[in-house]
Amino acid sequence: MHSLEKLRWIIDREIEKMDFAGRQPAELYSPVEYILSNGGKRLRPVLALMSCRLFTHDLTECVKPAAAIELFHNFTLLHDDIMDQADMRRGKPAVHKKWNENTAILSGDAMVVLSFNLISSAKPEILPGLLSVFNTTALEVCEGQQMDMNFETNPNVKENEYLEMIKLKTSVLIAAAMKIGAISARANDRDCELMYESGLNLGLAFQLQDDILDLYGKQEDFGKIRGGDILMNKKTILLIKALELADQTTAVSIRRLMNEEQDPGMKVGEMKKILDRLEINLIAWKMAEGYFNKAIRKLYETNSDKAQKNEFADFIHSVMNRKS
Amino acid sequence: MHSLEKLRWIIDREIEKMDFAGRQPAELYSPVEYILSNGGKRLRPVLALMSCRLFTHDLTECVKPAAAIELFHNFTLLHDDIMDQADMRRGKPAVHKKWNENTAILSGDAMVVLSFNLISSAKPEILPGLLSVFNTTALEVCEGQQMDMNFETNPNVKENEYLEMIKLKTSVLIAAAMKIGAISARANDRDCELMYESGLNLGLAFQLQDDILDLYGKQEDFGKIRGGDILMNKKTILLIKALELADQTTAVSIRRLMNEEQDPGMKVGEMKKILDRLEINLIAWKMAEGYFNKAIRKLYETNSDKAQKNEFADFIHSVMNRKS
Repeated sequence: MHSLEKLRWIIDREIEKMDFAGRQPAELYSPVEYILSNGGKRLRPVLALMSCRLFTHDLTECVKPAAAIELFHNFTLLHDDIMDQADMRRGKPAVHKKWNENTAILSGDAMVVLSFNLISSAKPEILPGLLSVFNTTALEVCEGQQMDMNFETNPNVKENEYLEMIKLKTSVLIAAAMKIGAISARANDRDCELMYESGLNLGLAFQLQDDILDLYGKQEDFGKIRGGDILMNKKTILLIKALELADQTTAVSIRRLMNEEQDPGMKVGEMKKILDRLEINLIAWKMAEGYFNKAIRKLYETNSDKAQKNEFADFIHSVMNRKS
Repeated sequence: MHSLEKLRWIIDREIEKMDFAGRQPAELYSPVEYILSNGGKRLRPVLALMSCRLFTHDLTECVKPAAAIELFHNFTLLHDDIMDQADMRRGKPAVHKKWNENTAILSGDAMVVLSFNLISSAKPEILPGLLSVFNTTALEVCEGQQMDMNFETNPNVKENEYLEMIKLKTSVLIAAAMKIGAISARANDRDCELMYESGLNLGLAFQLQDDILDLYGKQEDFGKIRGGDILMNKKTILLIKALELADQTTAVSIRRLMNEEQDPGMKVGEMKKILDRLEINLIAWKMAEGYFNKAIRKLYETNSDKAQKNEFADFIHSVMNRKS
């Protein structure tokens, strides 16, 4: 039996083996080492390994593909932080701040290549399947990031557009991680697809939860400014739902709060009052729960070990309830 | 028989089929369409197809891998232009100028993914071989770009360091193109390696030629400012050889020209006088010719069609003599 810590250790070990600290040119690989060791939870590769474990005891073939997902994920963080001008990442300076933008661009490029490298090392029998899901997903993630950037200048983002964006930007990579785990375990096509769909719903649930916790989470736990999304006028599910459900007067108030120069504390406070009145917190949680429950259902539909399914479900429950 | 125009047409057709002009989100794919249609010579994919043709009449399996090389090459142009703050590319605004840096970063990312996508579509028998050379090469190109950036702040770049840098930044992709052509044609391992080595030497010859033509080419043909590298204090083979061969007084003059604010025309003129006195033009051409001749030798060592070898040699001769 592999505990959660053991699964994380397996991934950390695989990343350590790549020895980014020792590679030349150091200017290229030090930032790779830096971002990969800054305390991420390894959520995606752990999900890949847990998905693999549903179907087999031998996780060996899943380790490199799982690490590939983690590298790709960290590449997206690296480049997104440049594009979003986000200066901090998990309490430390982002790569483009600690070094510079050129370094962040090029080290990110190297990470994409390294992730394909890891996927490519799979056995011939599973290689085409792994490449197919990895390739499709990687492109979708780029499309999702572009949609997210487009939303910045779009005052009327609709719920379905938002869900499509977070599906591409966030969910497909979680779905891919879980499918890759199943493929590595030689699960049949139906089970691989079920794990993909489970991951897609799980990813949506996680992202909606992130949107909610930005305003309603315990500040000290979440490590971010409460209401940071509101301060940046980010179109999250909270704002989109609020604009959808607000009467005309309230909608005007919301847009005024977004457009006018405000004291940060007051801006968040006023917006929260409106959201509370519209019960957006409750509505968004219901949505997130709906996706989460669908993820659980798909998981249980797979033809796999019952005890492992329960462990998988427990794990994603724990992630879902982390700060709610 | 495929003429050169036919080979270019095959590549253009393959890229057209990808329909970047019609893909969504347009903000992501328009820059991909833009950079791929800005009049590049398709040198690398043409070399891949010509390499394939040495061993087989059927080029079908080489087309997508050749297009992958072209996409990867254009991705490097896109990101390098951001890093080098190069505002123009082939007489048109660079992507990061026509759009913005974020667009250039993300569209470039999408192009890397798309290039892996194209490689991945190869038949299972040749897929591992293609992935192996493509993966290795892609990472080396990133390393080469990092070395090139490091050189900007290194006043004492040595010839062997410079050759290593241009090998990684430029030559390995040409070598990979030629090896990929041979792999697609199911050439044996020895011939695949010979084509790789031929390409490596050819790439070095081409880059040294570029360095020379920057100062000694016909300005109107080359489409750039004569001596642009000198104005930007770029460490090219001309400068490195000059510093190596100069006596102490001359070396001081060279460094003074590099470090002091100068009238551009005078700076290039003075530097050219020094280089001419040291016969750097001749020395650099000899070097380039040495690599070129080795490329030809490796080509002729392959066990392939004699007539096709001659055509291949004619083609690379024509590229080498384009403006000399």
